[in-house]
Amino acid sequence: MPRLNTYHLPPNQWPDVEGSRTLLTGPEARHLLGVLRAKPGDSLRLFDGQGRSGLFKIVGVSGKDKAELVVESLFLEPMPTSGLVLALGWNKSSRRDWVLEKAVELDALGLLFWQAVRSQGAPPAVAKDSWQEKCVQAAKQCGSVWLPELGIAHGGVEGLIRVAADPGGCYAGCYVLDENAATDALPDPASLASGKNLVVIGPEGGLERREAEALAQSDFKPLSLGPRPLRWETAALYCLGLAHFAARTSQHSRSSCA
Amino acid sequence: MPRLNTYHLPPNQWPDVEGSRTLLTGPEARHLLGVLRAKPGDSLRLFDGQGRSGLFKIVGVSGKDKAELVVESLFLEPMPTSGLVLALGWNKSSRRDWVLEKAVELDALGLLFWQAVRSQGAPPAVAKDSWQEKCVQAAKQCGSVWLPELGIAHGGVEGLIRVAADPGGCYAGCYVLDENAATDALPDPASLASGKNLVVIGPEGGLERREAEALAQSDFKPLSLGPRPLRWETAALYCLGLAHFAARTSQHSRSSCA
Repeated sequence: MPRLNTYHLPPNQWPDVEGSRTLLTGPEARHLLGVLRAKPGDSLRLFDGQGRSGLFKIVGVSGKDKAELVVESLFLEPMPTSGLVLALGWNKSSRRDWVLEKAVELDALGLLFWQAVRSQGAPPAVAKDSWQEKCVQAAKQCGSVWLPELGIAHGGVEGLIRVAADPGGCYAGCYVLDENAATDALPDPASLASGKNLVVIGPEGGLERREAEALAQSDFKPLSLGPRPLRWETAALYCLGLAHFAARTSQHSRSSCA
Repeated sequence: MPRLNTYHLPPNQWPDVEGSRTLLTGPEARHLLGVLRAKPGDSLRLFDGQGRSGLFKIVGVSGKDKAELVVESLFLEPMPTSGLVLALGWNKSSRRDWVLEKAVELDALGLLFWQAVRSQGAPPAVAKDSWQEKCVQAAKQCGSVWLPELGIAHGGVEGLIRVAADPGGCYAGCYVLDENAATDALPDPASLASGKNLVVIGPEGGLERREAEALAQSDFKPLSLGPRPLRWETAALYCLGLAHFAARTSQHSRSSCA
């Protein structure tokens, strides 16, 4: 089957059963109808970013931004229980969009932005809609049906310590990339891919000593990615890549044992 | 010691002994004198991108773009013998600059651009000076003294096969990222970090079947990075990250055995 065009339908508009109907509206519908010039009878794929996807057929069109769809088949991919939540020191960086995209490609469970002492500027009070939109576009590209949870951790390192301590967070491990960590304090990819793990990455310019120490005292394990400073987004993708790779390794070693 | 400002001095202008003199000219000198407003007596760090670096003192200035320097100390980092050469399918991508930067941060031995059937546009006849410049800027940021070798492999996959077969290339292994590879054909990070290895990555849109097959028939081992397509630059950084990580792991296991 050639790959169908994919659109995002928010979770709260998702139909429950095959044969039922739903409406695609807004920019997604404008693209479908205006750019792709889709017509009644055409098929498309929708996903909600929370594990659901499905094949749909257009049964009606009104105006330039409303398509009525009927469900042909629905799929559910279980919520991933292993992977990384990256707590990224805030930067005014144009590289943030890039990290959002890669987080989707490499199955990050979440991205938390936080204000470090050396952050340039301050994060917004809540995650911006435009970040979610960036993730949606990345998911269309790579076919992922789960989007990382996006949020802001307020209160500097103390806020991160609260996040780690929250019983609802269910973190298997908490880590902090620290340029002062011993150079043999390498991450263990298998641990990163086992359960939900929180990895703190400072802003460009790094963490201040007192930030790294406060985290270490609260059982965030210091990690080194090598003797040379990596850029913010390189460190983020490096960690995501290791966890992604280890998850696949463990998946294949499990299946070969079965 | 606070980190000194670093500038690039081309290998052919590099002084041989401590106490000798050299000239920094062009944009590097303009930045040093115009932006940093450096004066005679000030110290700086230079590197040549081929393993040499040194501390220098300014002993004279003429105009806005000429600084006479005396060598205070010289360092030589041996040429790395292990790591990746990525053969990247050509894209018109703005993401190329980004891959150049990450290649420096993550110790790529080289980047070869090649024209695949699905490439958009065609690479230039030879690597552009602006790519080298991008690498120089990245090396200043991360402190690397070796720059990846940049080149163009002409002649499509047949050109890549010639590169792999060239005895001067000394490749320990040759690989191709192939979306049709078995999903358990995972890269082995230790192999990627052992000797010089060539990894072929298709352009956005992937390799055509006949390209992947021609490479496989010439002993390029097909590798999978997972069931979902990764973007060009994500795949590149993913491989570089695995090799970088494995090199550090092996370095630390060697030193703990010693």
